Amino acid sequence: MPKPELLETFPNPYADRPYEIHMICPEFTSLCPLGGIEADAADLSLLQGGAPDFATMYLTYVPAEFCVELKSLKMYLWSFRNDGIFYERAVNHILDDLVTLVKPAYFEVKGDFAVRGGIKSVITARYGVRPAGV
Amino acid sequence: MPKPELLETFPNPYADRPYEIHMICPEFTSLCPLGGIEADAADLSLLQGGAPDFATMYLTYVPAEFCVELKSLKMYLWSFRNDGIFYERAVNHILDDLVTLVKPAYFEVKGDFAVRGGIKSVITARYGVRPAGV
Amino acid sequence: MPKPELLETFPNPYADRPYEIHMICPEFTSLCPLGGIEADAADLSLLQGGAPDFATMYLTYVPAEFCVELKSLKMYLWSFRNDGIFYERAVNHILDDLVTLVKPAYFEVKGDFAVRGGIKSVITARYGVRPAGV
Amino acid sequence: MPKPELLETFPNPYADRPYEIHMICPEFTSLCPLGGIEADAADLSLLQGGAPDFATMYLTYVPAEFCVELKSLKMYLWSFRNDGIFYERAVNHILDDLVTLVKPAYFEVKGDFAVRGGIKSVITARYGVRPAGV
Amino acid sequence: MPKPELLETFPNPYADRPYEIHMICPEFTSLCPLGGIEADAADLSLLQGGAPDFATMYLTYVPAEFCVELKSLKMYLWSFRNDGIFYERAVNHILDDLVTLVKPAYFEVKGDFAVRGGIKSVITARYGVRPAGV
Amino acid sequence: MPKPELLETFPNPYADRPYEIHMICPEFTSLCPLGGIEADAADLSLLQGGAPDFATMYLTYVPAEFCVELKSLKMYLWSFRNDGIFYERAVNHILDDLVTLVKPAYFEVKGDFAVRGGIKSVITARYGVRPAGV
Amino acid sequence: MPKPELLETFPNPYADRPYEIHMICPEFTSLCPLGGIEADAADLSLLQGGAPDFATMYLTYVPAEFCVELKSLKMYLWSFRNDGIFYERAVNHILDDLVTLVKPAYFEVKGDFAVRGGIKSVITARYGVRPAGV
Amino acid sequence: MPKPELLETFPNPYADRPYEIHMICPEFTSLCPLGGIEADAADLSLLQGGAPDFATMYLTYVPAEFCVELKSLKMYLWSFRNDGIFYERAVNHILDDLVTLVKPAYFEVKGDFAVRGGIKSVITARYGVRPAGV
Amino acid sequence: MPKPELLETFPNPYADRPYEIHMICPEFTSLCPLGGIEADAADLSLLQGGAPDFATMYLTYVPAEFCVELKSLKMYLWSFRNDGIFYERAVNHILDDLVTLVKPAYFEVKGDFAVRGGIKSVITARYGVRPAGV
Amino acid sequence: MPKPELLETFPNPYADRPYEIHMICPEFTSLCPLGGIEADAADLSLLQGGAPDFATMYLTYVPAEFCVELKSLKMYLWSFRNDGIFYERAVNHILDDLVTLVKPAYFEVKGDFAVRGGIKSVITARYGVRPAGV
Repeated sequence: MPKPELLETFPNPYADRPYEIHMICPEFTSLCPLGGIEADAADLSLLQGGAPDFATMYLTYVPAEFCVELKSLKMYLWSFRNDGIFYERAVNHILDDLVTLVKPAYFEVKGDFAVRGGIKSVITARYGVRPAGV
Repeated sequence: MPKPELLETFPNPYADRPYEIHMICPEFTSLCPLGGIEADAADLSLLQGGAPDFATMYLTYVPAEFCVELKSLKMYLWSFRNDGIFYERAVNHILDDLVTLVKPAYFEVKGDFAVRGGIKSVITARYGVRPAGV
Repeated sequence: MPKPELLETFPNPYADRPYEIHMICPEFTSLCPLGGIEADAADLSLLQGGAPDFATMYLTYVPAEFCVELKSLKMYLWSFRNDGIFYERAVNHILDDLVTLVKPAYFEVKGDFAVRGGIKSVITARYGVRPAGV
Repeated sequence: MPKPELLETFPNPYADRPYEIHMICPEFTSLCPLGGIEADAADLSLLQGGAPDFATMYLTYVPAEFCVELKSLKMYLWSFRNDGIFYERAVNHILDDLVTLVKPAYFEVKGDFAVRGGIKSVITARYGVRPAGV
Repeated sequence: MPKPELLETFPNPYADRPYEIHMICPEFTSLCPLGGIEADAADLSLLQGGAPDFATMYLTYVPAEFCVELKSLKMYLWSFRNDGIFYERAVNHILDDLVTLVKPAYFEVKGDFAVRGGIKSVITARYGVRPAGV
Repeated sequence: MPKPELLETFPNPYADRPYEIHMICPEFTSLCPLGGIEADAADLSLLQGGAPDFATMYLTYVPAEFCVELKSLKMYLWSFRNDGIFYERAVNHILDDLVTLVKPAYFEVKGDFAVRGGIKSVITARYGVRPAGV
Repeated sequence: MPKPELLETFPNPYADRPYEIHMICPEFTSLCPLGGIEADAADLSLLQGGAPDFATMYLTYVPAEFCVELKSLKMYLWSFRNDGIFYERAVNHILDDLVTLVKPAYFEVKGDFAVRGGIKSVITARYGVRPAGV
Repeated sequence: MPKPELLETFPNPYADRPYEIHMICPEFTSLCPLGGIEADAADLSLLQGGAPDFATMYLTYVPAEFCVELKSLKMYLWSFRNDGIFYERAVNHILDDLVTLVKPAYFEVKGDFAVRGGIKSVITARYGVRPAGV
Repeated sequence: MPKPELLETFPNPYADRPYEIHMICPEFTSLCPLGGIEADAADLSLLQGGAPDFATMYLTYVPAEFCVELKSLKMYLWSFRNDGIFYERAVNHILDDLVTLVKPAYFEVKGDFAVRGGIKSVITARYGVRPAGV
Repeated sequence: MPKPELLETFPNPYADRPYEIHMICPEFTSLCPLGGIEADAADLSLLQGGAPDFATMYLTYVPAEFCVELKSLKMYLWSFRNDGIFYERAVNHILDDLVTLVKPAYFEVKGDFAVRGGIKSVITARYGVRPAGV
């Protein structure tokens, strides 16, 4: 199960000026839901059923009061490693967790997933409106 | 003949937020219409007449109630393999089938076809208006 | 002399929906005007005077009633092979011939010419207004 | 079934000098063997079982008495389109058919197959010894 | 623990001719040994300690009697997912398992690991001597 | 400590026309804050604690009365070399120093930082509104 | 000294339609001002003091009555070869000379200068407003 | 008909040291033989039958007494423009003409032809033995 | 001063088989010797005199009894950060320190330094002879 | 006239080990000989006649007793700026001057010249034999 409790923040050091933070995370991996059912791999034998998925996650946000602490973000993304989860849910789930945490002016999550069945998928979800001039 | 009946959907897991799904399908192949006449290859001998076409299909949509199931999409695209069909029709046909199926907020199909006669063709058709902020 | 009579059309198979057709033609060649005078090479000896020009032609249009037939377009572009013609005229000439033929909603011709005298030239001419949402 | 009878030759126009001919064929497609059994698709229903494979074929040879006629090679490669065949066999089969046909000094076939199950395969088979200085 | 028992073979369909099989597996992941101690993650809590590693594995071999079955190879590489293992051991371990299995004329494993501490590592191990002319 | 006193200006030679100056500085390096505390490395032993960070800095501005002198900018960017400073502060700090100095119509600083913990960060801050037509 | 008198024009062959001409000139070279003083190299010994600068110049314009003759443009750009001139002045100077000459609807000059002191500079100046639909 | 009489030489300015001259000519064009029969286009009407071919020619040689004059080489390559000639013959013909002219220690001609029927061809012919240490 | 005492080793886990370890370290920085004199920056004021150098270091070796521990290598490379040292010495110094430490069968260090004065430098030094078949 | 007297050396700091120094100089410029006659531009008016040439020079050598000082090399290469000189002579001239100066074990000069008349030229000359294992 993704663990949002791993995420930490620090106070935005330039809160009076809207600016953009963009992060590229090429080492995201989760599992394909087994038989179409999303679950976390309570026991490792699940691995034979739910094939691994790989993605690059692109995160872009305009911080308000808080910023995401980089190391805690890495730990949070690792926590998907043994979960069975659909692409669409993974991207929206990450967006929800991060918006809840940092209450940003704007947040975008784009998941660029490796080819499966000869088809590549890119899912993009956004929260809020990008401030003018940013 | 393309087989839209192969397509399946699943309920959009985040229907209250408009977000974008983009799929890249580099393994599309169909046949060139024989003597300018579009037809499905009822018997394989047609293959000598209608030369193979190859394309990368780019699909982008903003789901409403439903999403396209990835594996069924792959099967649907395979179903063009032995049909004689023009570029313009293939792209618009795929758009029509998918719009009928998933009733999206927005859908775009771009077909990037391999060089023929020293000329490369890219056909792009769209349904609906891309929602602001997506 | 360019031969617009080589061009052929076919009825737009999806005329009720505006969509875009983009073609890349990397094998365009014509001759540089001899002594600054544009002419077609009535006899081959001209070749020593008018040096060859090479370009990639990018054609983009939104069809209305008709589409350009691909093979006839190839033949038409070949018909510049032994003409002495300036870059600016070639691009606008092709635009005029194609607009006259297919009466599109929108048409753009971009000619990307090979380096001459250490300078690369790209000429772009457009007809009509690109419809919103295309 | 691959159809070597489609292949044609023409006499090597410079037979007294060893030289190299290299051809890149990015539009090769066949079917995955159904249930691990190689077969040609005697009826189209096989298509649902045997998934399409895609490859770029690289052919390199030093001709002796004959050269492969380019258009016939294209037709021959098309003839794999509806066959269920393993990667290893496809590459070696093409090598055998071409060596039998043109009796070259040297021949190499490299098949670069699209990703399947997250793994890309490249198979290379060779006939004869590349002459020194070629 | 890596599971070599997942690996399967099939008889080399062209055993009388030495040829090369090259596979690129960009989706390899394992765990960094925890406190420098290699172990398999008997319980998932290890995940917080042993950070994930990511690599692209390049496998190249000249088969003798047997070939590696592609799908079983994929399963075998997945079995490293929750093991804590050093780069050098992972690459040599894969080489050992595959050589034991297929008894090839030649085998090479190259592991290209993602940047850690600003440094990228590429480990290459080989078995046997590449036959002349291959 | 960054040394804004190193920065020098020269009068904008074309002050009556808004135009854009863009500079790419791929050789920026600073230190990671030690234990999360930003400080300058008063003694070199700090180096073992605060790991080096590397970035490419992209600066874009529309000058008003003054331009930044290129050599002094280089010296100023060097002055971050032994400071422990967060990414977000470094980018905003450079923006503040340069805006104070050249009082531009518009200024943007983008810092593209090297991968840390498998994640790449790009921070972008802006001052003023880009004039229309520039 | 730059020699605008080298520039020649020819009448725009399609003056009734706004279209765009884009030229890429990767072979621009001038000298760095000696001791910060711009001057033309009246004697060659200056070369030891004023180091060479190199740039690619990108010119984009919408012609009105006249076009720039390509060969004369090349000669004009050569005339900067032995002048000591600042980046900002070079770009604006070229823009001024060309606007004076061809009285265009729109003109843009972008100078992309080679790395100096580890920093790359790109200067962009514009004249007029790009017509809608071009 | 190719015109070797256009070729000119100049004495090798460093004849006592073997060194290499490599030239890349991306603007080669000829015609496809009409009905498989090679011919020069005595009258322009042939153009409708024999489709244009395009290639990049790579020439590499170690000069002995003479070098090829660059401008004359350009003229010579232009002289293929209206000839119907096979790929294999074009490459070997150029090699023969240049070897006869400059009597080099070593000469290689590689013709990289544009895609026809989905297949790209590269023909390489060589004269002599590349001297050791060059 | 470079600190070889930071380097650590671990026993080669596959010492009976020669294999290759290749590491790419894009974050190397040192200082240019001040007035041509190499020195370590005993006090930070040196920084204004000795300009920063940046390089990517490529290390390749065949281990015998020991391997270089990756984290200690990173620390060792950091220890050049405030030293004034010539390119040639830096590369050979690193080679000497590592050969002394790991007593390898073969070791190569290549330093690819950033452009200075418009010239890029790449220095490569090697120890021992690369074993056959590696 | 090229000025070899600008070149300076420094003693090879690791003379007992053969190693390689490679330099890339993308900012070489000279003039085309006027009317085929090589000359230095005694007066600047020559510039209108002899068109500028541009090249990237690649220098590779194995030093013996001396190394080329980088800054003096830059000055030396600048000294070709206003000379009319053929490609072949420029490359061999640089090789001669540098071999005379540093008496290396091995030296190679490769000049990669910008396109002229649609043809790109690359000239490579070498001195001595590359030592085994370097």
